[in-house]
Amino acid sequence: MAQLQMTQLSLPPGMIHLGIGQPSPSLLPLEIMKKAAMQRLSQSDASFLAYGAEQGDGYFRATLAQLLSQSYGEAVNPDHLFITAGASQSLDLICTIFTQAGDTVFVEEPSYFLALRIFRDHRLKIVGVPMDEDGVDLNALEEKLATEHPVFFYTIPTYHNPASITLTRSRREQLVRLSLNYGFIIVADEVYQMLNYLEQAPRPLACWADQGKLLSIGSFSKILAPGLRLGWIQGTSDLLDGLIGCGLLDSGGGLNPFTSAIVRSTIEMGLLSSNVEHLRSVYSERLRVLQSAVEQELAEAVTFHPPKGGFFMWLRLLHGLSAQELLPEARSKNVAFLPGDQFSCSGGMKNYIRLSFALYEADELRTGVQRLSKVLKKVISQKSW
Amino acid sequence: MAQLQMTQLSLPPGMIHLGIGQPSPSLLPLEIMKKAAMQRLSQSDASFLAYGAEQGDGYFRATLAQLLSQSYGEAVNPDHLFITAGASQSLDLICTIFTQAGDTVFVEEPSYFLALRIFRDHRLKIVGVPMDEDGVDLNALEEKLATEHPVFFYTIPTYHNPASITLTRSRREQLVRLSLNYGFIIVADEVYQMLNYLEQAPRPLACWADQGKLLSIGSFSKILAPGLRLGWIQGTSDLLDGLIGCGLLDSGGGLNPFTSAIVRSTIEMGLLSSNVEHLRSVYSERLRVLQSAVEQELAEAVTFHPPKGGFFMWLRLLHGLSAQELLPEARSKNVAFLPGDQFSCSGGMKNYIRLSFALYEADELRTGVQRLSKVLKKVISQKSW
Repeated sequence: MAQLQMTQLSLPPGMIHLGIGQPSPSLLPLEIMKKAAMQRLSQSDASFLAYGAEQGDGYFRATLAQLLSQSYGEAVNPDHLFITAGASQSLDLICTIFTQAGDTVFVEEPSYFLALRIFRDHRLKIVGVPMDEDGVDLNALEEKLATEHPVFFYTIPTYHNPASITLTRSRREQLVRLSLNYGFIIVADEVYQMLNYLEQAPRPLACWADQGKLLSIGSFSKILAPGLRLGWIQGTSDLLDGLIGCGLLDSGGGLNPFTSAIVRSTIEMGLLSSNVEHLRSVYSERLRVLQSAVEQELAEAVTFHPPKGGFFMWLRLLHGLSAQELLPEARSKNVAFLPGDQFSCSGGMKNYIRLSFALYEADELRTGVQRLSKVLKKVISQKSW
Repeated sequence: MAQLQMTQLSLPPGMIHLGIGQPSPSLLPLEIMKKAAMQRLSQSDASFLAYGAEQGDGYFRATLAQLLSQSYGEAVNPDHLFITAGASQSLDLICTIFTQAGDTVFVEEPSYFLALRIFRDHRLKIVGVPMDEDGVDLNALEEKLATEHPVFFYTIPTYHNPASITLTRSRREQLVRLSLNYGFIIVADEVYQMLNYLEQAPRPLACWADQGKLLSIGSFSKILAPGLRLGWIQGTSDLLDGLIGCGLLDSGGGLNPFTSAIVRSTIEMGLLSSNVEHLRSVYSERLRVLQSAVEQELAEAVTFHPPKGGFFMWLRLLHGLSAQELLPEARSKNVAFLPGDQFSCSGGMKNYIRLSFALYEADELRTGVQRLSKVLKKVISQKSW
């Protein structure tokens, strides 16, 4: 039988695709999942094979609340957690329940490009709000609120994808006030919250859930494994109730009871916490390698904001270069990246590229940047000629 | 710690709820899942922990295609299968991709009540088409097609929920022709296809996928375990492409790779087929017990079409009784059922009740029907007085 495709990612041999934000195969926690599955499936309780409670298994929510309380440094109430089938499914469900075709939503400019695709599938009008080094520009946001009435503002407040910027504490407070004043929901994609490398992580927007109109999306994809399709939403009670009471859950029950039960064991056995520690150590080293390679090889062609967590570097191209014009030459040199315009809801960001340090080990990161450097030099020399 | 809710179902002690269409705890395959998880997690391949291929793991689709080919008696092409997170998620995704608020969809009258809830969440206009003993009435369907333009017709062709009726072969062929002539999609909910007890199962609508405009929904909830949240769609290629190319999958990858990989082992190890055999034997015996109890105890108060598979009996109440007027008295006698109007998109079917033989063993089924008999006698005597 020919090789069948199992994973989403399928790259040509030899290609170093620095744009891909997925964990490397060596970081997939097979041993952890095996231990946890054994622990869970060796007990006599088979409840997690029945239709699950709509909000998610109560024991799993209690365990997850403990984990989050430790991580956030403040108490998380299990009743404010709703278990989902991952961040993408969370976004899709939020669109189904709270919007209809033609409604407006705000996003950051730039924003996570695949979230934009989900919003387009729901036929929403997407309006971008610019960012600066402190996160989304709240003056620009308020100006747009004078004429537009978004159902929600989708933000990635911490270790932003792709911009690797973190919203400041004071802007978080101000954003929560704006959402109450103007009546829009904050949909905070906080999946990188625990992947801080060079600082204490900021207080997540999740912690304002009770004082605002807020849904904070979490996921096990970044801290355990993407293939689990398991995540959670921590949110304002009446908004959570709207999600939990939907027809999808009434029919199918909780979104992933079998996987929840096994992941519950990874938390209870301490395996998840040690995995997060391991990921922090691996990713922070890879970030160091990538950043120093970019500084050495690309200093004359790009500028960037140094990441303190997450998966990404967001490079601004100098010399009037556009990312799209680099791509064909890059591909011919067996290197790739994601061009900035993919992250724009309005075709902007053409002079940016996204790199990730999640998928490759140090050597490949260095080689990739060296290839990229040659590409840049060639294209720049062609332009000046 | 107080008992936390794990499962969707939570009944008062002593209550026999004959309406619930969920497998009994004794039928949840804990041992099977343990063996399969051990087999899968003991291999060195961790691919199923990465983002999965959007259409579903190729090896899993190949394995599932073999299972379905055996079951259907004709070849199923793995390329025509798309792996989902269960039937409810399939319906939700079909609504997101193919409809928008205000669009019309057709359903059978009666239909699966929780599908109706999913359609309402998408703000669709739901039009019911009557059924007779051979399935949906195609003359009535064609009449409605003269004035309405549904995006899809949602049908449960085999061992219908709740009506326990099976669409005849000739009507299946005719329905496929109608869908092509009038340009609507057939969404066939075929989750009971393998749960035939008293006959060979009919040719599923799935087998017409290549000649029509058809999406057939399958699920592991009925043949393995609801808590897995795993299913599939077999469909016409261009329709499948529309689903597989959506933003949700582009972002999150395949819908349930971890669980897919373990369920693949249940098929490869022969555990799924033996489980289906076991379920057929248990459910057919329970159907025999429930049907004979109804015939003995309720003969003067109800009529019904004898089921040949699936989970349900659909009782028509005589004497001008309505299901809703029986419910308070039933609850006070520790028995319950689902009233027919829940299965109607237009508030009809008031003189029907749905019973299921999935959740209870023989003794409880008999006791439940005896209680129901007393309730009926009491209400009838009050009415005649």
